[in-house]
Amino acid sequence: MFQRVAIIGLGLIGGSMGLALRQAKAARQVTGYDLGRGVSDRARKVGAIDQPFQSLVDAVRGADLVILATPVGAMRTLLQDIAPGLTPGAVVTDVASTKAQVISWAEEFLPSSVAFVGGHPMTGKELSGVEAADANLFRDSIYCLTPTARTAPAAIKKVSELIEVLGARIRFLEPAEHDGQVASVSHLPFLASIALVDAVSNGPAWQDAALLASNGFRDVSRLAAGSPEMYRDICLTNSDAITHWLDQYIAHLQTLRERIARHDRSLDDSFTRAQQTRLRWQAERDHPHR
Amino acid sequence: MFQRVAIIGLGLIGGSMGLALRQAKAARQVTGYDLGRGVSDRARKVGAIDQPFQSLVDAVRGADLVILATPVGAMRTLLQDIAPGLTPGAVVTDVASTKAQVISWAEEFLPSSVAFVGGHPMTGKELSGVEAADANLFRDSIYCLTPTARTAPAAIKKVSELIEVLGARIRFLEPAEHDGQVASVSHLPFLASIALVDAVSNGPAWQDAALLASNGFRDVSRLAAGSPEMYRDICLTNSDAITHWLDQYIAHLQTLRERIARHDRSLDDSFTRAQQTRLRWQAERDHPHR
Repeated sequence: MFQRVAIIGLGLIGGSMGLALRQAKAARQVTGYDLGRGVSDRARKVGAIDQPFQSLVDAVRGADLVILATPVGAMRTLLQDIAPGLTPGAVVTDVASTKAQVISWAEEFLPSSVAFVGGHPMTGKELSGVEAADANLFRDSIYCLTPTARTAPAAIKKVSELIEVLGARIRFLEPAEHDGQVASVSHLPFLASIALVDAVSNGPAWQDAALLASNGFRDVSRLAAGSPEMYRDICLTNSDAITHWLDQYIAHLQTLRERIARHDRSLDDSFTRAQQTRLRWQAERDHPHR
Repeated sequence: MFQRVAIIGLGLIGGSMGLALRQAKAARQVTGYDLGRGVSDRARKVGAIDQPFQSLVDAVRGADLVILATPVGAMRTLLQDIAPGLTPGAVVTDVASTKAQVISWAEEFLPSSVAFVGGHPMTGKELSGVEAADANLFRDSIYCLTPTARTAPAAIKKVSELIEVLGARIRFLEPAEHDGQVASVSHLPFLASIALVDAVSNGPAWQDAALLASNGFRDVSRLAAGSPEMYRDICLTNSDAITHWLDQYIAHLQTLRERIARHDRSLDDSFTRAQQTRLRWQAERDHPHR
């Protein structure tokens, strides 16, 4: 199916893709590159790649499919750095959390002889690193693809074949559409979580209050423990959609605040609406109709 | 230790208290009352009480300790309704989530011959109802007591003995201090969760975005699935502290929003601060030094 697939970034996502490709014998060769010391050797050991490279340009040379499996913060430099090594006709795809900005970098830095198709797999697990890689990580999960009007159909087909090997379900979205949707259900939640920890830990009684904090605080604050650099890079590359959703969120909090201040006894109506929405979402997730 | 303990409200909390008291043989008799049809009979069956009553006044008559184990929304009426049945010298305590309002109701409605000590056990589990009751529910957890300057020391001692039987650790707090601290770590989180679900589900693309929502959204939105009536009653009885904390939260979100809008590259500094705070809180929780 593929001749040579190059995976750049051999963490949980890149490593799992390599495992899935190799186990399905879908590529003649899988090459790999990672900035981290010894990571590409470990990736070969766990069976995620056939051939590690010390040079980024060497890793992508001759590849018909190049997968950029790094956080969004690395993408701009990466796209610039792989450009000289790419073989004409190659298809490049990525897995970053935001799409419009990455696509504009790809259009700026990649030669016109190669095609770029933005992607975003909606999966993950608590563990990270190539040691946690799992050929079934993508199975039955959603994989967003965000081709533009300029993307060649053959390139979309090639990346779709990759996703088929991974066992995921493709969702085609406009880049801006994707970025708006993930801003609401993925980026707003981590900012809500961070602001909660910020706000309560700035109070004069935080040390005492912390002792009273229980499972509710634990869950709502969990995302605040995530990677600051990754969160920053997401904010920097999706600021319009994120500020839009922060405005919506603040407006809803402001309305709640006013109703609580005036002892509105029908507050439970809104709480019931949110409860029903949350329960429906969970039910749909546990037993999808599709 | 106790002659007759009356437990009003035989859910998870009241039922677990009854089990702990009876297993420790700490009371000559444990009586019980619950509004729910058949609940007090089931409480007797599981061993949480000795004697069920159909009448609230009969249940509390002759008791030296009365435990009001209901949500805060029921407290005002309950305090009015038990007043005629209370025996002089009795000590009344409660388990409600907010304290200042409940204490002012107790001062308004209870006869001067009985003492009231506000309490709030910081424990729980996902399951509810007397069938989920567990004599060890309170073991090693924090139990807040909020006596005032007017509370008789003998009454505080009596409730402290109850908490000792439960195996919990007492924390003495001023009522307003308690209400401020739980507003920050318990009430603000559920409002943050509800507002998140409200905001994102009001967007035009919610049906599509919902399919992309993953574990982050799941955790931050989980509290939105809780009881709307309980949340409303907490908001109505703790509105000052809650609006204060909502204002702090909104201010932090507003600051984040401005920094994201102007592409502030040092955003990760704040994210790192929140991350460290959250990790320290979790570590302290997993391995408390006290």
